[in-house]
Amino acid sequence: MRTFSTIIASSTPIGRYLISRLSLRRSHAISVKPQASTPPMAAADASNEESLRRTLAEKQSAVDAQGNAVRALKAAKASKPDIDAAIESLNRLKLEKSSVERELQSVVSGSGGGASVNREAFRQTVFNTLERRLFFIPSFKIYRGVAGLYDYGPPGCAVKSNVLAFWRQHFVLEEDMLEVDCPCVTPEAVLKASGHVEKFTDLMVKDEKMGTCYRADHLLKDFGNEKLEKDLSLSAEKAAELRHLLAVLDDLSAEELGAKIKEYGITAPDTKNPLSDPYPFNLMFQTSIGPSGLIPGYMRPETAQGIFVNFKDLYYYNGNKLPFAAAQIGQAFRNEISPRQGLLRVREFTLAEIEHFVDPQDKSHAKFSEVANLEFLMFPREEQMSGKSAKRIPLGEAVSKGIVNNETLGYFIGRVYLFLTCLGIDKERLRFRQHLANEMAHYAADCWDAEIECSYGWIECVGIADRSAYDLHAHTEKSGVALVAQEKFSEPREVEKLVIAPVKKELGLAFKGSQKNVVEALEAMNEKEAMEMKAALESKGEVEFYVCTLGKNVCIKKNMLLISKEKKKEHQRVFTPSVIEPSFGIGRIIYCLYEHSFYTRPSKAGDEQLNVFRFPPLVAPIKCTVFPLVQNQQYEEVAKVISKLLKVAGISHKIDITGLCSG
Amino acid sequence: MRTFSTIIASSTPIGRYLISRLSLRRSHAISVKPQASTPPMAAADASNEESLRRTLAEKQSAVDAQGNAVRALKAAKASKPDIDAAIESLNRLKLEKSSVERELQSVVSGSGGGASVNREAFRQTVFNTLERRLFFIPSFKIYRGVAGLYDYGPPGCAVKSNVLAFWRQHFVLEEDMLEVDCPCVTPEAVLKASGHVEKFTDLMVKDEKMGTCYRADHLLKDFGNEKLEKDLSLSAEKAAELRHLLAVLDDLSAEELGAKIKEYGITAPDTKNPLSDPYPFNLMFQTSIGPSGLIPGYMRPETAQGIFVNFKDLYYYNGNKLPFAAAQIGQAFRNEISPRQGLLRVREFTLAEIEHFVDPQDKSHAKFSEVANLEFLMFPREEQMSGKSAKRIPLGEAVSKGIVNNETLGYFIGRVYLFLTCLGIDKERLRFRQHLANEMAHYAADCWDAEIECSYGWIECVGIADRSAYDLHAHTEKSGVALVAQEKFSEPREVEKLVIAPVKKELGLAFKGSQKNVVEALEAMNEKEAMEMKAALESKGEVEFYVCTLGKNVCIKKNMLLISKEKKKEHQRVFTPSVIEPSFGIGRIIYCLYEHSFYTRPSKAGDEQLNVFRFPPLVAPIKCTVFPLVQNQQYEEVAKVISKLLKVAGISHKIDITGLCSG
Repeated sequence: MRTFSTIIASSTPIGRYLISRLSLRRSHAISVKPQASTPPMAAADASNEESLRRTLAEKQSAVDAQGNAVRALKAAKASKPDIDAAIESLNRLKLEKSSVERELQSVVSGSGGGASVNREAFRQTVFNTLERRLFFIPSFKIYRGVAGLYDYGPPGCAVKSNVLAFWRQHFVLEEDMLEVDCPCVTPEAVLKASGHVEKFTDLMVKDEKMGTCYRADHLLKDFGNEKLEKDLSLSAEKAAELRHLLAVLDDLSAEELGAKIKEYGITAPDTKNPLSDPYPFNLMFQTSIGPSGLIPGYMRPETAQGIFVNFKDLYYYNGNKLPFAAAQIGQAFRNEISPRQGLLRVREFTLAEIEHFVDPQDKSHAKFSEVANLEFLMFPREEQMSGKSAKRIPLGEAVSKGIVNNETLGYFIGRVYLFLTCLGIDKERLRFRQHLANEMAHYAADCWDAEIECSYGWIECVGIADRSAYDLHAHTEKSGVALVAQEKFSEPREVEKLVIAPVKKELGLAFKGSQKNVVEALEAMNEKEAMEMKAALESKGEVEFYVCTLGKNVCIKKNMLLISKEKKKEHQRVFTPSVIEPSFGIGRIIYCLYEHSFYTRPSKAGDEQLNVFRFPPLVAPIKCTVFPLVQNQQYEEVAKVISKLLKVAGISHKIDITGLCSG
Repeated sequence: MRTFSTIIASSTPIGRYLISRLSLRRSHAISVKPQASTPPMAAADASNEESLRRTLAEKQSAVDAQGNAVRALKAAKASKPDIDAAIESLNRLKLEKSSVERELQSVVSGSGGGASVNREAFRQTVFNTLERRLFFIPSFKIYRGVAGLYDYGPPGCAVKSNVLAFWRQHFVLEEDMLEVDCPCVTPEAVLKASGHVEKFTDLMVKDEKMGTCYRADHLLKDFGNEKLEKDLSLSAEKAAELRHLLAVLDDLSAEELGAKIKEYGITAPDTKNPLSDPYPFNLMFQTSIGPSGLIPGYMRPETAQGIFVNFKDLYYYNGNKLPFAAAQIGQAFRNEISPRQGLLRVREFTLAEIEHFVDPQDKSHAKFSEVANLEFLMFPREEQMSGKSAKRIPLGEAVSKGIVNNETLGYFIGRVYLFLTCLGIDKERLRFRQHLANEMAHYAADCWDAEIECSYGWIECVGIADRSAYDLHAHTEKSGVALVAQEKFSEPREVEKLVIAPVKKELGLAFKGSQKNVVEALEAMNEKEAMEMKAALESKGEVEFYVCTLGKNVCIKKNMLLISKEKKKEHQRVFTPSVIEPSFGIGRIIYCLYEHSFYTRPSKAGDEQLNVFRFPPLVAPIKCTVFPLVQNQQYEEVAKVISKLLKVAGISHKIDITGLCSG
């Protein structure tokens, strides 16, 4: 069952921890961004590959033609020098073809040909070391394990504990956040409101004979990648078609995925049996609360919902003041269809999430100046679209130029950068990538992922999203409890309020059964739309009006509604706060940290290669070793005293009284 | 649905975290020890109550007789002085009866009558304060919550985080334990081996019309307690019968509980509808792993199993040396039938568990001398049986006298005592109670509970059990992986080994289809049994032998097996380690800590009562407040600098620059 994951070490890192966010914009299914595979090919590489494929096709034609020519000469019993010359020419063409082939091979398998092989060998060495030293253990190993579940062994557990302690220090304590701790078992109502019950799904296909399940997009991705990498005879057109498919995989419906699987004749990888049509599978672990079996529940897929439902109490606790942030560290669960990529895609993982609530009219941040001068790799939307690479931008500039939507979002990007680099993440292999427009939920104002480069490519490890008022709105609507904030005015303000008053009698006569839809659509107009309609009605007496719930235009007449502006005195403004959400996949960060801290060096005797993790003291599972320089009873006693003092001081250490400093 | 728990504050404390242990010895069901109710009545109290009930019955008879006498005198138109004298005598008897009644009332409702009322009022004040200050929040409150699920709000979360950090320092770091972190989602095989799938159940009855579920033992307990407390006319015999029932409630089978419910005519508390017969309900939250729906899984009911299944790796990690301890902090889940007692019986809670593996032939502890002089309240089995109270015993004496089974168990009792009292648990309201023989699993060598007294009575907060080799045996058997340790001998030892060699041909002829059962039974004989059989066969030529899997005796003849002792050289001893398990219900400890830290005092103005938690610095959610003594711009700046320094140092604090020290 598990060929790869059983031989590697273990962890409980995160599944696809931002998918819940992304997922909500999809109508049928969510699928995975290519976060943990080779990064999307830059435009320059793609056009290079295309031209190579064309050249290769030309060379192949030339080889074929020359081959025919040679055969024709032989058949015509031409002179030996003529034949030899033709063969020599054929061989030259073959050599040229081989050279193009090699070049193409190197382009399609990543920078420099051997790179992907090296990456895998490096990963294997890191994993073997991690497993041998019990940083990870495949969970329930003696019962042959469960795919996607890993334990932290003693040193891994110490690293995790250090990372979480630093997270608390760096965010909760230094930013005065309100930390909460909510249960994993969650009743259905909460996850219906958040959209997870309906839309937290992946599209799945089944081996029709064996019942084995696969992710539909994974099968297509594997098929496409393999074809592109291994089939050098693929025409430039076919290659372009496959690359396009891989790029839009996330946006395909179940029907479209199914059609593609049929078109390419893809079968079950293990058995070659035919596959079912794709259908959605909800990724939440379902359970039942209480003995009646009547209260459905789920294991939470993220910790954020526990904070949202407590907004009212937390806002009150904060003295009814904005902005404030709440934070939570805890387990989250995703019942992956077929977990791959070892420690990066798992079924249970630790999340650390922050929900920073802010007035949507004022997203400035009091401490932004403290991070404004930081400069690091950012990968804005535009650079991605135009095929460029990530570039160093001062954070202050990114915000002032509007590349990053607002100061608060920018502040958290800066704080996340400091957090990750303090842990030991290599600055050169960390970038902040902005979501493309089609990656973001419709309600999101802006999203940036902290991506860390490791042997799997660029991995999304922290997501920082401005989710606007979506979550609080959703829970307000479903629970009937208003999750809002108030701004009290020092003196009452006179405000002009738009009033849209439908004349229900006239509307009823005109639209009968559809009256309700029309009324709702009219009342939902914003100020600009309403004032335009008012003007049109006054000048023309009637106007065409699109009712989205009916999917058509209707004709609105002057007598059907009154649009006016009224002046009112208001003592406060009531509004739904926006939320800015930094969400940390702790297991993924730790895994990348392992790779960035790892190196090999020869032993002092030079007879073997030593595997070393060079951790910063902050995360090192063991801070120091106490050993006497020579073996001596008196020294040993002193070493024990020192060890005891270190224990009391809470400093993890080893004691080695062999008197032999090991090399 | 939730009358009580919604008005109290919240937490995620532990359910019945030792029940998994206890449960395994029961054949039909497990039920709850009276841990969180009034402690079992001491023998002295019980005999006092009995004699009062008898006196009351006598007084009632006397009152009745004298009443009859008065009526007879009146009917006989006796003289007024005679009638008056008889009436006076009647009134005196009535007064005497009332006095006995009052005394009985006070005995049955706890020490001094008003005590239970006071306890409830105190609890309510603590709860209200905890909820108002967001130490706890009922989870998913805006969706009307879920019974038995609570959030930790900001100060509660800080307390929990402090308690866990100290636990790590006090146990993991100071004792060099191997900490691990395993998933909550657990495949069925693991929990089948541990016995939870079969036996982790409570007995449930259903309201036959409404379907509402109740715990069968709870209904009987409530009925019995109410009857004993409120029905003073209950005869001494009936009262004794009820008290006996309450004492043995845990040991009753489904049939016996059902019979008692029928006998007492108990109906559904909410509707008075008839109840179904009791049947077992498994307390684990069930789920399904992966998309096929074919891999059943559960949310772990305890963290211990994750350690046991990793024994082999951990033993290797420890250099194949015993003793060593592994530890785990994490969530555990119990789908309670109907959670009661607010924060003490919940459906999800944090456990901190230690599994200390030790050679069963040597349970001494190197550091026992460090705790030997501690002296605190212990409540050994004998004291409980003879109706005495807990008493102060030096720990060294408890171990040397064999009250506590061994040094390692004693060492952990001492360390737990230090842990709890450092947190701020009142020494006078902490006792270590030994399990009675019928409370322990058959394989357990000894068990002690750290019980803390709070408004609910004496609450089991830490269980410290010597579970012998049970768990490792069970997983060895079910997984086929030998979870054993080796003791290498410095020189090979000559040992005499018992060899039982069945002669299969003869056994086959004699027992045909039952041959396998007979062979297994013969091979399972211990040395004593085998040597006795050898002697008997030699003297009598044949012997009767009981084969338990056949349920009958068979006749074994001399030619059917060879029994001998062979001398062998052995280089090592292979054995299954014993495990000593301290298991901490973190939420329960925190709740008791709240009660022990709470007091009220009048405000300085004397016009209101202030509610105060006096936490030790170790657990205080906020360590200090920075405030200038007078309101002054310069001072404010300094206060901010101090605040910043405190943040960097990781010291949680508040800053108050109003310049007004509040009282």
